[in-house]
Order: sequence, then structure tokens, then C-alpha cells
Amino acid sequence: MAGFSFSTEVKVRFAETDAQGIAHHASFLVWFEVARVEYLELHAGGYQSIRDQGIEALTTEVHVRYRRAAYFDERLRVWARCVDVRGARFRYEYLITRGDERVAEGYSLHATVDRETYRPVRVPAWLAEAVAGASPRASEES
Amino acid sequence: MAGFSFSTEVKVRFAETDAQGIAHHASFLVWFEVARVEYLELHAGGYQSIRDQGIEALTTEVHVRYRRAAYFDERLRVWARCVDVRGARFRYEYLITRGDERVAEGYSLHATVDRETYRPVRVPAWLAEAVAGASPRASEES
Amino acid sequence: MAGFSFSTEVKVRFAETDAQGIAHHASFLVWFEVARVEYLELHAGGYQSIRDQGIEALTTEVHVRYRRAAYFDERLRVWARCVDVRGARFRYEYLITRGDERVAEGYSLHATVDRETYRPVRVPAWLAEAVAGASPRASEES
Amino acid sequence: MAGFSFSTEVKVRFAETDAQGIAHHASFLVWFEVARVEYLELHAGGYQSIRDQGIEALTTEVHVRYRRAAYFDERLRVWARCVDVRGARFRYEYLITRGDERVAEGYSLHATVDRETYRPVRVPAWLAEAVAGASPRASEES
Repeated sequence: MAGFSFSTEVKVRFAETDAQGIAHHASFLVWFEVARVEYLELHAGGYQSIRDQGIEALTTEVHVRYRRAAYFDERLRVWARCVDVRGARFRYEYLITRGDERVAEGYSLHATVDRETYRPVRVPAWLAEAVAGASPRASEES
Repeated sequence: MAGFSFSTEVKVRFAETDAQGIAHHASFLVWFEVARVEYLELHAGGYQSIRDQGIEALTTEVHVRYRRAAYFDERLRVWARCVDVRGARFRYEYLITRGDERVAEGYSLHATVDRETYRPVRVPAWLAEAVAGASPRASEES
Repeated sequence: MAGFSFSTEVKVRFAETDAQGIAHHASFLVWFEVARVEYLELHAGGYQSIRDQGIEALTTEVHVRYRRAAYFDERLRVWARCVDVRGARFRYEYLITRGDERVAEGYSLHATVDRETYRPVRVPAWLAEAVAGASPRASEES
Repeated sequence: MAGFSFSTEVKVRFAETDAQGIAHHASFLVWFEVARVEYLELHAGGYQSIRDQGIEALTTEVHVRYRRAAYFDERLRVWARCVDVRGARFRYEYLITRGDERVAEGYSLHATVDRETYRPVRVPAWLAEAVAGASPRASEES
């Protein structure tokens, strides 16, 4: 997918469907998170290693645009990239596809805080570099 | 709250918390939905009555801005209003408060479709009127 | 209900339904937990107060027998009682009703542990007494 | 694992954890379901194919015994086998392991019903055979 170099797969669980017969819209946030965690595992030693260093990454904003319904047992590909790491904030962008179809897209904003005081701390350099190396700015890629 | 005349209360469930010790960010979408359903019950005979008339309301977009963490067992007030009913689309806006604090705010967009064909159908007049009567445009209120 | 003196109400959320058009079976565990938390709030100063004293109550076993499907937007009554407090263990029993119908019943077992070491600690006397006073043994009630 | 020939892997999602810092106990039911669905895909053409034939499999009972806490990002193996297919009922047994450790075990009972009338229908012969061939009785295996 243009602009994305990382993706992971999820399979729609029955527990994730609702009485409309489709995946509940809140499930997409969970899939975004699954991709974010996998991405960090690949590029920055994992989310747990960030937590181990006394940092929590809070979610401060999310946005999802749903284009197609997703159904039980379907395999979806969740593309993710981290962009705009600056200060104590970073931003992820997502695209969910089923074959060639765009099922949904979205973004999330995050803030890094000290795990004890919950006061903002800069995104550590190693994390910023890992992330920047992994995901060139979207404008350079697409 | 300025601009909102409807609200409902939720109490943060233990199952809705995560290992950061706060309510998981996807829970907020579920609370928005709880408020949307209560709102429709009050103003339009209930979500079920809409479904009974062969119409499904799909969620096409959501946005949440998180301002404060929410904790287990806290009582939160979820304010909701329906605005911009036009054609086959309508929009909800939300504010979540804890006492005087703004915990989160957001919006969701919805499209009404025929339950069998999943093709767009206009929001029925009775629903548009019920909704319009209940929620004067935000600009008139705030 | 014979044998129960405490109950709370839940309303089936849309997010709790699944593609069978009914409440997903895992939702019942969440409702049991909601009732357990309300029960502790009434009888023992709340679950949070237990956590504040350095104790965690872990769930070690659950059982649910589903008798009727539950549907979106239905109001269900969740009956709960705490029985058999002994040593570091206690047991809850549940009944979910819709009007006169039994929708589900079940139980859960819990162990109290030190919050730091996760080693078993006896259920504190004040908690055991609060719980015992609130729920006479089922055999005495029914 | 003695008695089990099928397993699948799940990775604990952040959304599945709770404020005790461990996977919430209701998540285990979702993992059991994930294994059940994978099992049916392998042995009986998939859960969807059963639904396509006008049959729903309802969950009528579940039991979980939790032996160890499960933590964020851990890979767990979920073992499943289908036993005791008779009439309109069947039973699944589960074991969740982390390396050599038993994390949890449990079972679920299911009833097959007609998708329109919700009246019990016998488990179809092809399904019973597929299932029986796949999972010899535990007593023969262990």
C-alpha cells in the first residue's frame, strides 16, 4: 500500500461482531492497537520495553473512517506507520484492507508520560529514531 | 453543559479498564453508543423501532479527543446531541464529563441504509423531526 | 428471587451483541462482575477500598449456564450473593432474570492476594463479616 | 498436550488486559471461541459453512478454571477438542498453556438450532463425523 511499509493481519472474531452482523465499530480501535503494538515490537523493542523504562504512551485522540463493513472470520490487513514524532507526542496512521478494498482508515495521537507522575516526558531519542527510520514521512513515500 | 440538553450516566466497569489502570480508549466508543441509544429511546421511539422499520444506521466515522483518564468505578456523564440530519446521513456530538471536568469529546457520523439491500435510504421524516426537535443546532444554543 | 437479597440492573448494550443477534456469551461474565462490584459497594465499602488496602481479589473459576438468549436493549436483573468466605477464598453465586424468566445462572470463585507479592492473604475479617451479614447462606433463605 | 491434537495461538492484546495488570478473565472465553472457530475451519469447513446451512450453534454452558495470570503481549497456546457429539448437543474442552505451564482450562457446551425457528436440530452427520474423526475421546488419547 502506498505510504505504508508495515502491516499485520487480524481475523474478525465472532466476539467482535454485533447484531448488525458486522464487526462492531469499536473493534477497529483494538485492531489499530494490535498493529501499533506489532509495529513497536519490530522497530523499538516492543511496547513492553517502553513501559519497562518508566514511560507510558497515552492515547489522546483517535479517528476512524469506515468505508466497508467487515464480517466474521474475514482476514483483514492492518497497515500502520508512525509519523510526526515530536516532543512528547507522536501520531500513527492506519489503513485496513481486504484484498484490494479499503475497509477503513484512521489515525491516533499519543503522548508519552512518566509512569509514576503522569507528567509529559519527551519521546526518548532511541524511540524517535527507531520510529523515524522505520516510517519515512508519508509525503516522501506516496 | 452548553449546547447539550441530553445526557446519561455510565459507571466505568472493571472489564473496561486496561493495564495502564485506566479505562481503555475503545470503551469511550461504547459509551458514546450507549448515549446514542438512550437518546433515540427518548426522542424517536428507540433504536429498536428504527431497526423494526427495516432501517439500519451504520457508523461511518468516529472521532474521540481524550482529555483526562477515566478510572474504574467512576461515574461519568455522557452528553449527546444529534445534529445535521440530511439525506441519508446524520451526525452525533458527544461530551463526557466528570463533575466539572471535560474527560473527552467526540463525534460520530451515521448513514441510514435499507436493512435488506444495505442501500442508502433517506433518514425518515419522523426520525429527522424527532431528532431536530430534540437538539436545536449547536450554534443556537451555545 | 429465593436465596438472593441483592440485585442490580443492566441493559444489553449494542456492543455486547454478536452476529447471532443476541448478547455474546462472554458479556455475562462482565455483568456478573458489575453485580459483584455493586454488591461490594453496598456491603464492604467498595471494591476500590479493598484494593486500597493492598489486596487484590483474583478470579480463579467461573461457570455460566445459559438458559435463554438475551437481546439488545433488554433490561436484565443480575442477582448476586457472596457465600463460603473461608481463608483466602470466597465464592459468588449469580442469577440473571428477565421478568419471571431465568436467563442465566452461574458462580465465580475468588482468591485474595497481597497486591505486591501476589501471595494469598486471608479475606480480611471486616470483609468476611460484611459479606456474611449481607448474604445468609443460601440454605437458610430458600 | 495429552489428549489434545489441535491448538492455535493467541497473543494477549492490550485491550484484553484490566487494571490488575493481567488479562481480564472474560478474555479467556473469547480465546476459547477463537480456538473453536479455527478447529471447525480445519475439520468441518468452518463455522460460517455451518451457519450457511441454516444452523446456529448456541453456547449453553461455559466453565473456566484460571491457574495462572496471563499478561499483555504474551503468546498463549489454546488447545481445543470437541467431544461428546450427541443429538443436538456437543461439548468442547480447552487447555491454555504458556510454554509448559497450564494457564487455564475449561469447557463449553453447545446446542445446534435451526437458524429461523431456533428449535433444536440434530448435529448434522457430516459435522458429527468430522468432529469425531478429529478428536478421539480423551480417554483413548491420554
